[in-house]
Amino acid sequence: MIVLFTDFGARDPYVGQVKVRLAERAPGQLVLDLLHEVPDFNPHAGAHLLAAFALGFPPGSVFLAVVDPGVGTPRDAVVAMAGGRWFVGPDNGLLSVVAARHADARLWRITWQPEGLSATFHGRDLFAVIAADIARGEFPADKLSAVDRLNVEFDGGDLARVIFVDHYGNAWTGVRRVPQDARVSAAGKLFKHSESFGFVGKGEGFWFNNSIGLLELAVNRGSAAASFGLKVGDLVQVQRLN
Amino acid sequence: MIVLFTDFGARDPYVGQVKVRLAERAPGQLVLDLLHEVPDFNPHAGAHLLAAFALGFPPGSVFLAVVDPGVGTPRDAVVAMAGGRWFVGPDNGLLSVVAARHADARLWRITWQPEGLSATFHGRDLFAVIAADIARGEFPADKLSAVDRLNVEFDGGDLARVIFVDHYGNAWTGVRRVPQDARVSAAGKLFKHSESFGFVGKGEGFWFNNSIGLLELAVNRGSAAASFGLKVGDLVQVQRLN
Amino acid sequence: MIVLFTDFGARDPYVGQVKVRLAERAPGQLVLDLLHEVPDFNPHAGAHLLAAFALGFPPGSVFLAVVDPGVGTPRDAVVAMAGGRWFVGPDNGLLSVVAARHADARLWRITWQPEGLSATFHGRDLFAVIAADIARGEFPADKLSAVDRLNVEFDGGDLARVIFVDHYGNAWTGVRRVPQDARVSAAGKLFKHSESFGFVGKGEGFWFNNSIGLLELAVNRGSAAASFGLKVGDLVQVQRLN
Repeated sequence: MIVLFTDFGARDPYVGQVKVRLAERAPGQLVLDLLHEVPDFNPHAGAHLLAAFALGFPPGSVFLAVVDPGVGTPRDAVVAMAGGRWFVGPDNGLLSVVAARHADARLWRITWQPEGLSATFHGRDLFAVIAADIARGEFPADKLSAVDRLNVEFDGGDLARVIFVDHYGNAWTGVRRVPQDARVSAAGKLFKHSESFGFVGKGEGFWFNNSIGLLELAVNRGSAAASFGLKVGDLVQVQRLN
Repeated sequence: MIVLFTDFGARDPYVGQVKVRLAERAPGQLVLDLLHEVPDFNPHAGAHLLAAFALGFPPGSVFLAVVDPGVGTPRDAVVAMAGGRWFVGPDNGLLSVVAARHADARLWRITWQPEGLSATFHGRDLFAVIAADIARGEFPADKLSAVDRLNVEFDGGDLARVIFVDHYGNAWTGVRRVPQDARVSAAGKLFKHSESFGFVGKGEGFWFNNSIGLLELAVNRGSAAASFGLKVGDLVQVQRLN
Repeated sequence: MIVLFTDFGARDPYVGQVKVRLAERAPGQLVLDLLHEVPDFNPHAGAHLLAAFALGFPPGSVFLAVVDPGVGTPRDAVVAMAGGRWFVGPDNGLLSVVAARHADARLWRITWQPEGLSATFHGRDLFAVIAADIARGEFPADKLSAVDRLNVEFDGGDLARVIFVDHYGNAWTGVRRVPQDARVSAAGKLFKHSESFGFVGKGEGFWFNNSIGLLELAVNRGSAAASFGLKVGDLVQVQRLN
């Protein structure tokens, strides 16, 4: 299974162009769109989303992870194996959180360059080819060089910021598994805890541990983003009581 | 064939998370995205859309239908068989219109609860599993209990309201097959009938029976929603002359 | 492979309705979403996008190309074979640029009409059926009539206008392969050339030949559309120095 995790946009033609390459290089492989709206130009938020999502996917899954504002400049391209799953993408921090969180992590730099590599679309021309090779079970050792560490590494710990806002206006953060008696605040407001939406009043805000284990701020039948002005990058305060 | 009909959003990561479960539980089954922008928190509009769409799908299709603002609260989860097709979703009215319109309808409550059921994402943890079982041809009798009726039932008749606005700004209603000489008005305006867009002037409004048999309000090369301020929930008046 | 190229919208239910027809008529065929946000009602922009995208797809690919504001009126429906690839869509110019650019182009009018043809959704009822036939390798000669030319033909040369704006705000034009020393201006501003985003300052504008060979205007970590007020249809000036 090849899992697509990008900032290419759900409405733009970039995903389809990647998929035709995958279909040519790894015919018959399931290609799954996980998210194409990773916050633009923001590998830090993306790194925390990717690390949290990955846990829900079966071993052997290959993530094509592209949030790549430095495409075409001399940043490196890398492959990571972590937690039994594979990750292919730019060396700009995007893969660093999932790598830091798994003791079995192994890393390779992509040394191969295809003929006709475009300067602006390595997702199609480079990363898709490597991901297809791995998904087919043909590890492209001749295109890679093992490395000890990434050039850009983010902290493997939690990120106490909003890292994603969904279309309902729910604000996801990079903080994992918060105990129910913690004090959670953001945008100058203290949020109460609720297990789910329907246990608070209509229009009322609350926090919960979401379905991939991240602290999320929400409003029942409303938008937390609109109600409280929350956006990607905003700080969240979590005070654990013990 | 498993057909996805949700308010999860076309740009959010919820659909991908459902698909990985379907791929694990029903490998090789075709999974088709019908609509992920059912009006948020609005099972009533969704119920009328679902009933109209279903007629275009082959017998044996399994609809995973999730518009579920009450997820995690003690609302029931149900399976319906109606018109030779299957429907899996919350018991909040969403499946009630399609069930009411088919004399062969049969209903089951989902009694099974998976380990690790999240409080906020039954689409992934519960409904996807049941839909995959049915799609594989293995009816999960041990996870279900036959019931005579749903807890929440909407009227099986037409709904004279706007139930969907597409990206062109066309406004769909829940009224079926309107004769050409009917008087149709909405937002204080009388609409004329036209078979299609190109038969009225540019920027002119009209109504037609759309491709799934519902009354739709539109503007040639423009947006009916923007031109007339139409939005989901708005009333439409249909006066049949005979 | 069937490639979908439409203005149906990435969030609307039209694509799913087409896919169920394709699944019924051409089971097992790969169906690839290339773009569903071709500028609405704009076959001219769409024709230039389609011609540029097609070059990246393997021979034998079948494009279902629908931007069809005249659906239901007496415009013709056509099939084109050009550059070893197939194209099915309305005769409103949408297929004319790719046809004009390939010396091997052959053209057919669709003479068949299915029972129950809707007046507003030929993408589902007519074009999908023809595309499925061709993709299955069963050329539907009995549904077609060879023609010498299209009714509506756009110039096969470049189109010096913005033809697409992506979600980043990058503005694509219909001008192919511009030499680096050309003078490029739009919206009253002279743009400088850069190979990629990271070689100019944050917030700075530039132009480049994009990954399908079209002149594109962009801003590093920003939106060219927002910064310069660029939108589909805007003129671009390209002055080649030799």
